[in-house]
Amino acid sequence: MDDDHAFMRLALAQAQKSYDEGGLPIGAVMVENGQVIAQGHNRRVQDGNPVAHGEMDCFMKAGRRPRYDTVTLYTTLSPCMMCAGTIVQFGVGRVVVGEARSFAGNLDFLRQRGVQVTLLDDADCVALMTRFIAEKPALWDEDIAGNG
Amino acid sequence: MDDDHAFMRLALAQAQKSYDEGGLPIGAVMVENGQVIAQGHNRRVQDGNPVAHGEMDCFMKAGRRPRYDTVTLYTTLSPCMMCAGTIVQFGVGRVVVGEARSFAGNLDFLRQRGVQVTLLDDADCVALMTRFIAEKPALWDEDIAGNG
Repeated sequence: MDDDHAFMRLALAQAQKSYDEGGLPIGAVMVENGQVIAQGHNRRVQDGNPVAHGEMDCFMKAGRRPRYDTVTLYTTLSPCMMCAGTIVQFGVGRVVVGEARSFAGNLDFLRQRGVQVTLLDDADCVALMTRFIAEKPALWDEDIAGNG
Repeated sequence: MDDDHAFMRLALAQAQKSYDEGGLPIGAVMVENGQVIAQGHNRRVQDGNPVAHGEMDCFMKAGRRPRYDTVTLYTTLSPCMMCAGTIVQFGVGRVVVGEARSFAGNLDFLRQRGVQVTLLDDADCVALMTRFIAEKPALWDEDIAGNG
């Protein structure tokens, strides 16, 4: 297994953890120089925090830093406009996306703003998200405020 | 004083509170049907949270809700790409901006995505932000990761 798929396994484990907690199953991992510096998952249900998407939770876990150009952010699901905007504002160098079938997200926006994007189209990421959306469609709708 | 300027006074009071705490002086207020539903300010310094810009703190304070089209968000400073992306993803109906001189932000992006934008060009908002940037340029640079 290459590094991208290995780190995506960690992000998917975060997503599964959130699913097991009754939350939205979207996970993220932040990596720098081959080292994991933060792991997170969606916390809308767990913390009642509407902006705590998986990627945002990773930024929070990583704490304060002056720059992000050497960072790669792994996320199980294609980033929404909030998370894509955050990636661009903070200048994250590279984003690796598990899947964009359940939610198209904003991959072209990221590329247009100079972010290196890799889409893995991972079957396990698709399966978990597909299952969740079928089980809790109202919660998924709330997480993206209907802007899917 | 009209309602927009009155609510901007509340946002500016939040910004001043953050300044007095040693943080970034950017405040925000969320209003629905003429009622304040949340007030917040930047919490990078106070909480060590890099995504807690003033607007984001307001979303957190407002808690979970399914839609935001009836919401007006007041912010003392033009929204960065993270906050603009959040406003668009959650479908906030209207944004009132204190000033865009210290930081141009993303007003055209918001308008292009269907958000109603009002720029007050408030002298007191400009004065507080100008003073802060002169006093703590490195902290301001960190807050926007150099992407000003």
